[in-house]
Amino acid sequence: MEIAEYVAEIGRRAKQTAPILARLSSTCKNQLLIKMADYLVAESEAILAANRQDVEQGKSKGLSAALIDRLTLTPQRIQGMAEGLRTLVSLEDPIGKVTGMWKRPNGLEIGQQRVPLGVVGIIYEARPNVTVDAAGLTLKTGNAVILKGGSEALHSNQALVGTLRKALADLELPEDAVILVERTEREAATALMKLNQYLDVLIPRGGSGLIRAVVENSTVPVIETGVGNCHTYIDGDAELEMARRIAFNAKVHRPGVCNAMETLLVQRDIAPRILPLLAEDYQKAGVELRGCPETCRLIAARPATEEDWATEYLDLILAVKIVADVHEAIAHINRYGTRHSECIVTTSYAKARLFLAEIDAAAVYVNASTRFTDGFEFGFGAEIGISTQKLHARGPMGLEALTTIKYIIYGDGQIRK
Amino acid sequence: MEIAEYVAEIGRRAKQTAPILARLSSTCKNQLLIKMADYLVAESEAILAANRQDVEQGKSKGLSAALIDRLTLTPQRIQGMAEGLRTLVSLEDPIGKVTGMWKRPNGLEIGQQRVPLGVVGIIYEARPNVTVDAAGLTLKTGNAVILKGGSEALHSNQALVGTLRKALADLELPEDAVILVERTEREAATALMKLNQYLDVLIPRGGSGLIRAVVENSTVPVIETGVGNCHTYIDGDAELEMARRIAFNAKVHRPGVCNAMETLLVQRDIAPRILPLLAEDYQKAGVELRGCPETCRLIAARPATEEDWATEYLDLILAVKIVADVHEAIAHINRYGTRHSECIVTTSYAKARLFLAEIDAAAVYVNASTRFTDGFEFGFGAEIGISTQKLHARGPMGLEALTTIKYIIYGDGQIRK
Repeated sequence: MEIAEYVAEIGRRAKQTAPILARLSSTCKNQLLIKMADYLVAESEAILAANRQDVEQGKSKGLSAALIDRLTLTPQRIQGMAEGLRTLVSLEDPIGKVTGMWKRPNGLEIGQQRVPLGVVGIIYEARPNVTVDAAGLTLKTGNAVILKGGSEALHSNQALVGTLRKALADLELPEDAVILVERTEREAATALMKLNQYLDVLIPRGGSGLIRAVVENSTVPVIETGVGNCHTYIDGDAELEMARRIAFNAKVHRPGVCNAMETLLVQRDIAPRILPLLAEDYQKAGVELRGCPETCRLIAARPATEEDWATEYLDLILAVKIVADVHEAIAHINRYGTRHSECIVTTSYAKARLFLAEIDAAAVYVNASTRFTDGFEFGFGAEIGISTQKLHARGPMGLEALTTIKYIIYGDGQIRK
Repeated sequence: MEIAEYVAEIGRRAKQTAPILARLSSTCKNQLLIKMADYLVAESEAILAANRQDVEQGKSKGLSAALIDRLTLTPQRIQGMAEGLRTLVSLEDPIGKVTGMWKRPNGLEIGQQRVPLGVVGIIYEARPNVTVDAAGLTLKTGNAVILKGGSEALHSNQALVGTLRKALADLELPEDAVILVERTEREAATALMKLNQYLDVLIPRGGSGLIRAVVENSTVPVIETGVGNCHTYIDGDAELEMARRIAFNAKVHRPGVCNAMETLLVQRDIAPRILPLLAEDYQKAGVELRGCPETCRLIAARPATEEDWATEYLDLILAVKIVADVHEAIAHINRYGTRHSECIVTTSYAKARLFLAEIDAAAVYVNASTRFTDGFEFGFGAEIGISTQKLHARGPMGLEALTTIKYIIYGDGQIRK
């Protein structure tokens, strides 16, 4: 109960700042971003000291090397965070834009205006860079933000948020526009998920366990991000070298991220020609292959199980399946995919059209690596995450995903007859 | 467990039809709507007979006269449902529209295309007209629909859905595109709220109790609709007759709906002039007034309690409060309002601007009755409900609210460097 009260108090404080933030001019918000960036650099020493505490505790708790790496800050990484904030300055501010306005027969003029969501909650793991990134994106869009980072990064997050709040105070803006949940008990996260009174949206950023927990337990509206069981389908009509290049890039370029390929589908006729070439490429890159029985007859691969088709490895592992045609490929993807990013490699106009039309996913590619599903690669200039749900935002989310609309209606005394 | 399986099976069947519906041409969907309308009229007798069963059971269970009225079908009401379906034909089909397409420096062409949500669930009360209305809107937008109506309308809904499915069968479309949950136990509704595997969105249509239950228990993404504690603020600079007309219309025109006014705020200086006039108007219309202490000194009214400010009466009852200025009005509305529809009556440019900017609501009016918050009045030609949440859709929801987007990406072999 005490934790619920603590979290509610945080919600109340954040909510109070929302109307003030909603009214800020773009100029003021940009000044704030620059000041936040300057403070981060100026206070690097203190931030690094706090981070060393977290890293030492993490090591003594036996965190994996990968987790320690994500947790660790360096002067360069802090510089990178500051750079990220400065980049936001040049992006167009979506707030206030009237995206449509029309006049009704009765003379009412109705406009649709972009406004901030209000208070945005972010739940994430022990990655201090998310703290700064999320604060920058939410403030740029006139929102208050409640941050709930992984407990292993508590000291780092306290130092970072303290620094960002100095910038708010300098500009005489309410410091509670950026609030960190400093209680690390699981109940604090649960309370945040039920904070409908104060929280307009909750965005989990992290692994599939975290995301599932938030989706299942949250009564606050959630934007589900991230899980990507992505496929590349090499059609019988594909250009061989292009297919080889795309299938290699999609798996190997950065296997640990959500837009990396997890299953390769190959049309039966082209399989004997392309699979041995790809197997060689993958072997050199250290990729473990798990194949359907037919695949295993063509190349060296462990037999794939039913589970493999549904798995997001996030690793140098690839499931390979031979299919009869584009229809079987589409059926497989729509069955096992997570509606993230899917690709066909083909020279056939008809099959490209069919794939684009029938695949149910946030991003559907013809002849390009799924690795491009990314706010920066899409040209949004920023990314708060990649939505795999269909409501509100789908695919890479830029600044607009952190906004909503309101209808503004200008009348001259109209009443309903 | 058995009920959960039954509901899951319904979900599975609906989901199977989604890709087929997503591909239908506008022509085909319009043919379907017309055929559904024709069947409704042709089978009126059977529908009315089923409805009589529900009405008789409802009466013997002691349902209120208002509920019985909502439940009762007549030949005219069936004609009205059919007319509603035919109206949808003329509306533009949002599916397939590419709302933006751009070329990246690497040559990738990225487009944003409108696609159906997939499977839409509607939970509603004993109002058979919602069955037809919801089916029409979801099919027009290429979605499958799972309908869970109030148990008191079960026979009517069975007859209606059976009729609509004949139209699907006639056009050789999958009948499971429209499925009724025929189990009436509470567990059936609960199972639907957890059907994330098959359901893309759940829309509750009904009273605040139903909506709260769905928001609190659903893990499927929900679009919250309907609750409206709406205000009209009469500013000191208002034109008296306009203010009187708007305040009367907003309360009395149709008090039982969500966009009706529930609290009237009056600026202190104008109160002695306008409140007696309004009190007279309201008295003639049978409106019960509940006032703040100052109001009670000016006109005959019961003293309002704290609870009154937060209540959506949906009845001929009005809370009245005198405020110092537009700032106090805004603060009151943002505190007690449900972010639905709010109005200022004023001749002041500055105060109109301030009100539009600072009120956090789906629809903010200057000098017009809040009763206009409605998909038809806004010119959308249809309405699936009025969203009071900020994600996905806000305010009156037309066809577009039943769609999402997918990114379609045309490449020439691009890989990520």
